[in-house]
Amino acid sequence: MIKPGIPKGTRDFGPVVVRKRNYIFQTIRETFEVFGFQPLETPAMENLSTLTGKYGEEGDKLMFKVLNNGDIYTTAQHAKDNKELVAAVTEKALRYDLTIPFARYVVMNQHELALPFKRYQMQPVWRADKPQKGRYREFYQCDADVVGSNSLLNEVELLLIYDTVLTQLGMQGYELRINNRKILFGLAEVIGKTDLLTDITISIDKLDKIGADGVRKELQERGLTDSDIATIEKFLAIDGSSDEKLSQLKDLLQSSETALKGIEELSFVINSGYTSFNTAPIIDVTLARGLNYYTGMIVEVKAPASVKMGSIGGGGRYDDLTGLFGLKGISGVGISFGVDRIYDVLEELQLFPEAAQQSTKVLFLNLGEASARTAFGYMMQLREKGIAAEIFHENAKMDKQMKYADKRSIPYVIILGESELQENTMSIKNLTNRRQDKIGAAELLNYDF
Amino acid sequence: MIKPGIPKGTRDFGPVVVRKRNYIFQTIRETFEVFGFQPLETPAMENLSTLTGKYGEEGDKLMFKVLNNGDIYTTAQHAKDNKELVAAVTEKALRYDLTIPFARYVVMNQHELALPFKRYQMQPVWRADKPQKGRYREFYQCDADVVGSNSLLNEVELLLIYDTVLTQLGMQGYELRINNRKILFGLAEVIGKTDLLTDITISIDKLDKIGADGVRKELQERGLTDSDIATIEKFLAIDGSSDEKLSQLKDLLQSSETALKGIEELSFVINSGYTSFNTAPIIDVTLARGLNYYTGMIVEVKAPASVKMGSIGGGGRYDDLTGLFGLKGISGVGISFGVDRIYDVLEELQLFPEAAQQSTKVLFLNLGEASARTAFGYMMQLREKGIAAEIFHENAKMDKQMKYADKRSIPYVIILGESELQENTMSIKNLTNRRQDKIGAAELLNYDF
Repeated sequence: MIKPGIPKGTRDFGPVVVRKRNYIFQTIRETFEVFGFQPLETPAMENLSTLTGKYGEEGDKLMFKVLNNGDIYTTAQHAKDNKELVAAVTEKALRYDLTIPFARYVVMNQHELALPFKRYQMQPVWRADKPQKGRYREFYQCDADVVGSNSLLNEVELLLIYDTVLTQLGMQGYELRINNRKILFGLAEVIGKTDLLTDITISIDKLDKIGADGVRKELQERGLTDSDIATIEKFLAIDGSSDEKLSQLKDLLQSSETALKGIEELSFVINSGYTSFNTAPIIDVTLARGLNYYTGMIVEVKAPASVKMGSIGGGGRYDDLTGLFGLKGISGVGISFGVDRIYDVLEELQLFPEAAQQSTKVLFLNLGEASARTAFGYMMQLREKGIAAEIFHENAKMDKQMKYADKRSIPYVIILGESELQENTMSIKNLTNRRQDKIGAAELLNYDF
Repeated sequence: MIKPGIPKGTRDFGPVVVRKRNYIFQTIRETFEVFGFQPLETPAMENLSTLTGKYGEEGDKLMFKVLNNGDIYTTAQHAKDNKELVAAVTEKALRYDLTIPFARYVVMNQHELALPFKRYQMQPVWRADKPQKGRYREFYQCDADVVGSNSLLNEVELLLIYDTVLTQLGMQGYELRINNRKILFGLAEVIGKTDLLTDITISIDKLDKIGADGVRKELQERGLTDSDIATIEKFLAIDGSSDEKLSQLKDLLQSSETALKGIEELSFVINSGYTSFNTAPIIDVTLARGLNYYTGMIVEVKAPASVKMGSIGGGGRYDDLTGLFGLKGISGVGISFGVDRIYDVLEELQLFPEAAQQSTKVLFLNLGEASARTAFGYMMQLREKGIAAEIFHENAKMDKQMKYADKRSIPYVIILGESELQENTMSIKNLTNRRQDKIGAAELLNYDF
């Protein structure tokens, strides 16, 4: 008999963890809903033709491909190398993110959808990344996107969603860092090197990790001149309040129309006057974000500095996502919550509320058939009132039954001994504070569990 | 550009369907929880060694296997046939049901679990069945199981869960048909053909479809004598009230101790005196259920006869499930809800409540910046109160904005024109009954949306 296990990088979630995760999902879901976002669910498997080439070469490698059913031996014979073999025996892969399936859905349903279409989606995705601390091969994404609207009100609302959810989760000290891709493009334009846009943003993005000297060295290696680098360093030195930053950006990048457009957009998002934030977004000119499809605002959410967790969410505007599937000119903007990391933050800061950790509230002890029958009736009354209750499954020793309550962290035990049965009462033991009450049967539904 | 699609037998669930499905999931989940069941989630992928051989040969064929990442070309070279090739290039498969992963979890966590362990699990499973009406390659299972308890109270509670959930869903006329595998075994024992147990039960199970003559013919073909068949026909003729059925069973099968045990168990479940049902379970001696691991009570839930949907759930007791993974002597009993079919039943009987179909409640029209800014504030007040509200994303023609509300089935539209802004009021249009109210801004949170 082989000792059973689960695939590398995957996890079982036991009751305690599922409840806490559901608390996070539920908080996010409720916020998505009150903001008018609509739920969508797509299949775990997508056709390879939908996914291939959408996540770069690395993505194609890290996709979990699903073997065709039936005979694969014959088709496999003709394959001359690994790539041909994979192509011959697979035509589906597991969902790699929620964005491409969403784009695919929008294109397939374009004639039925009311635009703008505001959708949210909370489902697992799979990636064959090397498993390591905090990185799994199966993990949930929670995304909200709006397609079919250029209005910057969407950017404001999405930032508000972050602000609302994180506040509701009790988090303090998180940061909503924002930037605009047009500003980064404008910077490359100002120094006359738009072809090096990606190189510049990749290097800038590392400022936190490798410092100013590191960035300078990288930029030199990537073929930028001293004069280019001087401009970039001025850019990186931008500092002060949001308004000060915006004004410095305007000064430095005034020759680029694209940059000015980006600055205007950023300015609207910061100073829209439509609403106020619990934690106001911060302009971070070094923020670049990896995915190349972003074209407008980009956002990254940092966990409170005390927990050293880094990013717990991010997103941005992309101008032509559905274009990948032939539907041009539909702009989109979206955000994503990193639930696994948010879980770790809440755990570390002990922010999970009592309610998210509670399962069964009341255990009725089983003291033999007569007692158990009466107990069963009371138990059903509690259940009908929505209070989770159990009766121990057999007339075991009191000690064993109490141990079960303890191990399951059930806070109340109800005892119906002979005297209680005669008196039509019950004894309620609070296992948290060891207090014991005796109440009349009629009072059960008013008892403050 | 290839027209995008999704794999055969899979589905996208748009907003309206997701909400209705969530209503079903939520009703089931809440009932599982008040009955003291604990949530569990297992990975979508399991090791092939966990799954292979657990679902019969057919199951092994219908599993979706996941291609190993990295180079498969080299390992594939040595394969001499299809089976060897599949074994050389895969080591994981998608979850085929929730029972085997549950058994695997129990064995892996046996030292931490408080027994009896009552778990529920609601996750998708994947099977490469031929897609057809009502049969999909990706579908949800919703299971509740108890392991580590022989008490028949569990059977009673699981039947109560069906009764509670279906009543809460507003279904009437459903049937909880129950039987006991020991009775079927006893029947085979009485006619001295326990080796033909499977043949007998398979034929009996078809009574509904092929009629008494059909069953007789099948039994003959399967090698049963006329005298055997006479006994089986007496068995099938058992009829009347539950007590009458139990007494006829006792008469017919008195020579089998196993049968008598099964009858006693069935009798307890029917007449436990612990509780009452909205719809009392019915004894159906022809009920067999396919999976061979059942050893005690079996149950099947039939949809109301008017909808012709057949089974919408089922389950039973199995005595040695974890034995598959080396942990002997742990009895289990469980039930499963067929969510896709329940969905169809509720749809056909129009039982989905209004609340399960509602998304955004209020749309604020966008009548230019000054109006929109004020509207945004009101909108946030509604959202904080948990009322889903949106503002149209741009100052478009009234007509376009009303069309959006209509297409999205948003029931209320709020208008802040110049006069409303001056008066500090707002006009609320009910799109369902066409009524229009004008209220003071301070009354918004008390308005009965």
